[in-house]
Amino acid sequence: MFPKNAWYVACTPNEIDGKPLGRKICNEPIVFYRGPEGAVAALEDFCPHRGAPLSLGRVVDGKLVCGYHGLEMGCDGKTIAMPGQRVRGFPPIRSYPVAERYGYVWVWPGDAAQADVEAIPVPAWHGQTGWAMGGGLFNIRCDYRLLVDNLMDLTHETYVHATSIGQKEIDEAPVSTTTDGEVVITSRRMENIQAPPFWQDAMAANGLDPKALVDRWQVCRFVPPSNVLIDVGVALAGSGGPDADLAHRASGIVVDFITPETEHSCWYFWGMARHFQADDAALTDEIRANQQKIFEEDLEMLERQQLNLLAHPTRDLLKLNIDTGGVQARRIIERRMAAESKQEGQTA
Amino acid sequence: MFPKNAWYVACTPNEIDGKPLGRKICNEPIVFYRGPEGAVAALEDFCPHRGAPLSLGRVVDGKLVCGYHGLEMGCDGKTIAMPGQRVRGFPPIRSYPVAERYGYVWVWPGDAAQADVEAIPVPAWHGQTGWAMGGGLFNIRCDYRLLVDNLMDLTHETYVHATSIGQKEIDEAPVSTTTDGEVVITSRRMENIQAPPFWQDAMAANGLDPKALVDRWQVCRFVPPSNVLIDVGVALAGSGGPDADLAHRASGIVVDFITPETEHSCWYFWGMARHFQADDAALTDEIRANQQKIFEEDLEMLERQQLNLLAHPTRDLLKLNIDTGGVQARRIIERRMAAESKQEGQTA
Amino acid sequence: MFPKNAWYVACTPNEIDGKPLGRKICNEPIVFYRGPEGAVAALEDFCPHRGAPLSLGRVVDGKLVCGYHGLEMGCDGKTIAMPGQRVRGFPPIRSYPVAERYGYVWVWPGDAAQADVEAIPVPAWHGQTGWAMGGGLFNIRCDYRLLVDNLMDLTHETYVHATSIGQKEIDEAPVSTTTDGEVVITSRRMENIQAPPFWQDAMAANGLDPKALVDRWQVCRFVPPSNVLIDVGVALAGSGGPDADLAHRASGIVVDFITPETEHSCWYFWGMARHFQADDAALTDEIRANQQKIFEEDLEMLERQQLNLLAHPTRDLLKLNIDTGGVQARRIIERRMAAESKQEGQTA
Repeated sequence: MFPKNAWYVACTPNEIDGKPLGRKICNEPIVFYRGPEGAVAALEDFCPHRGAPLSLGRVVDGKLVCGYHGLEMGCDGKTIAMPGQRVRGFPPIRSYPVAERYGYVWVWPGDAAQADVEAIPVPAWHGQTGWAMGGGLFNIRCDYRLLVDNLMDLTHETYVHATSIGQKEIDEAPVSTTTDGEVVITSRRMENIQAPPFWQDAMAANGLDPKALVDRWQVCRFVPPSNVLIDVGVALAGSGGPDADLAHRASGIVVDFITPETEHSCWYFWGMARHFQADDAALTDEIRANQQKIFEEDLEMLERQQLNLLAHPTRDLLKLNIDTGGVQARRIIERRMAAESKQEGQTA
Repeated sequence: MFPKNAWYVACTPNEIDGKPLGRKICNEPIVFYRGPEGAVAALEDFCPHRGAPLSLGRVVDGKLVCGYHGLEMGCDGKTIAMPGQRVRGFPPIRSYPVAERYGYVWVWPGDAAQADVEAIPVPAWHGQTGWAMGGGLFNIRCDYRLLVDNLMDLTHETYVHATSIGQKEIDEAPVSTTTDGEVVITSRRMENIQAPPFWQDAMAANGLDPKALVDRWQVCRFVPPSNVLIDVGVALAGSGGPDADLAHRASGIVVDFITPETEHSCWYFWGMARHFQADDAALTDEIRANQQKIFEEDLEMLERQQLNLLAHPTRDLLKLNIDTGGVQARRIIERRMAAESKQEGQTA
Repeated sequence: MFPKNAWYVACTPNEIDGKPLGRKICNEPIVFYRGPEGAVAALEDFCPHRGAPLSLGRVVDGKLVCGYHGLEMGCDGKTIAMPGQRVRGFPPIRSYPVAERYGYVWVWPGDAAQADVEAIPVPAWHGQTGWAMGGGLFNIRCDYRLLVDNLMDLTHETYVHATSIGQKEIDEAPVSTTTDGEVVITSRRMENIQAPPFWQDAMAANGLDPKALVDRWQVCRFVPPSNVLIDVGVALAGSGGPDADLAHRASGIVVDFITPETEHSCWYFWGMARHFQADDAALTDEIRANQQKIFEEDLEMLERQQLNLLAHPTRDLLKLNIDTGGVQARRIIERRMAAESKQEGQTA
């Protein structure tokens, strides 16, 4: 249950360094690799000869060579050559629109004719100076929408991440939810508070007194099909919040690119684009390690929640004000899926 | 396939020390914890907010706080509070009758109106002096009735436990099976024999010559819904058997509280209440360790038997005289299940 | 989907040394052991008493004693005795035709009336001097026919086994496929080439210059139901190939006895019968270790191919000239299965 006419993050460029990568995206087993001149390519992970996964093969001069009997596949899904064979009549395999942008490889698992690379949204930090980025990847055995819910309602930080980014003021601060076209925004401000441990570390790293009172903000943006980008930060109390001088704040964007793997599992490309001390590579590593530890705290909760929901498929869940962001996001996802179904109906 | 209107052992008190415990009983995922004033509580393991398992939360002042978004649940299944929310309209979750008695926490997974705490049978050693108890817990992937069969026919000791409690005289001694209301009793006496290794150790621990000839007895009592309590012991030959002076025997009760988890798995709370050297805590530990090793010998057999039966669902098994105890126990279980079905039919 | 009226390799004799062995063959759980006078026996792995797997028991004086309650089973599937019981009325369990021949235990999972031990084909090296044999066993989660395909098209060596037995000349040499009754033969000759590493080692072991140019041959023989025996070797270029003097070549037979376990898994008894330096036991060990490493390279490919085919059950695969051996072998398998179905229809 996911839109297929959409750009999803498939992998990071380093995952296809020198070898193909097999990964299931929206239930489709796909092989990703670098074709001629290093351009990314994405094909059905199925050799037309005997059904071997092409991802077990190797890339030679931009051709994907099947690791079983040496069939050479082109990035358009047409067989180029095979030792001792005429390949002209070989059935093509599916190729997928794919693009390398903004530090990720994106794939379009739906109707190729509708894929427009320019529709991949430009991240706010792209091409800007003063930003640094680090992140990682989890495979989570839950519906991708449970993770969207999680990220659109940050009151969970108080409970799941009590020792790092959670604090009781998140629960206490009112949340506001708005939409801007297909973007859903939930935001929350906390003023004159003590920063929680993660942000105290960030303040110290940026030369601020970690014990100083701060204003803290969280602005979650759901961007279809299923990504969440969160403006986060703390600034010395009264210095202007997100608009404070960079010297008075520590801030950034929590990056959550979420890609369905199957109906009950997803790929979670998480990261942090920070807007302070961008040149400090050790700080990037440290923040990545801390963020990994924090985000790992969500895994058991999400996977066990999924199991509970599968065991009670008809039970209604509550939709409180704190859930509005997730509810709105799901509505947009459903609208997109309905549009795809309608389109398919017209085609057929 | 289990009676639900029954008290089952759910856990031992130490399992809910300071934190909730999630455990599936009779196919129902339940969270156990200590509510106000330390009284045990049992609820559906499902937060009414977003379906998270409440067992991942924590207990604060007798309230079960969901570990995802902080909903505070009462031990009656009604939400007490949630940060920033009015909770009066929240749907209640199911609460289960529960009691802490005789060193165990008991739960009633069926119709709460029929639950009577006084119906939990008082163990023979309860409130008596001169007894000591030790035990443990296994999760076994077999129908709980296969374990009842196992314990109601102790000829298996000769084969499965050949080096500890088994001896050929078990096979040779005739077994007698009787019923007393819903209690099924199989008993066997062996006279003037050498004790097997486990009982030789017990004799030595009680100051008896381990090589002396003994009379040995085994009296298995099936108590519905699915527990088996076994009077066991050896006494110096001719000294009176189970009625011998405590100085001339080593004896006790093998405790087998068996609780269905699913249709093909169960919880096995095993233990030994011994009636000698009750103050010797080191002996308690030693017996527990030995018993664990012995009972582990049953696991592969039971789980592989279960797989064989699932592969041959229509094949009839033999019901020999040695199987009469298990056969009678199953009849009582079936009678109880039939009564429940009938009752449900009348209610509907 | 396998013929059942056929002799399959079940195990090697050492696997039933002193204890029974439980193994599923063609979906049938079977226990193998040595009965009276050490003769191999094969029975349903199901005790008629309570359904325990007999393979968890032990063999006493040629009787298979159930490890649960001591039932003594005879190799004809009839209960011999049980402590304290009259066993005459016990239902028999199925016994299977079984034979120990040529270093393996063979079983006939189909209609016992049709089993003729003399139909087990005599391996070429049996009873010959100058041969030595070593091998091992894999359990592979793929349809046994994928493994037959693999072995009837050795062009995969160039890709899967590039560093040991593969070389580009395999791809370049034309393959010829013929049939001889129910035996399918694919063969290939490569002349005046450098031997690949595995064969260079063999040449050195046989006192030949490993860098000398050789003629190499591969003659794969599919023998129903699902075995493949491959004449392989290298001889000094121009010295006569497979007919060269033994001093001028290193050669042998790759042994592939393949037995279905379930529809999507199989037992692979692999080995090498070599026709040089037969007395060198250390060489046997070394070749076995190398062969194991080489054949392990196939496992991931076969299991992942199987998953791909299960995900695309209706997709046609290509049947190229290199696939002809496998295609013909499958035809013979299908013919045998059709004959069995027809026979069953007539019986019913």
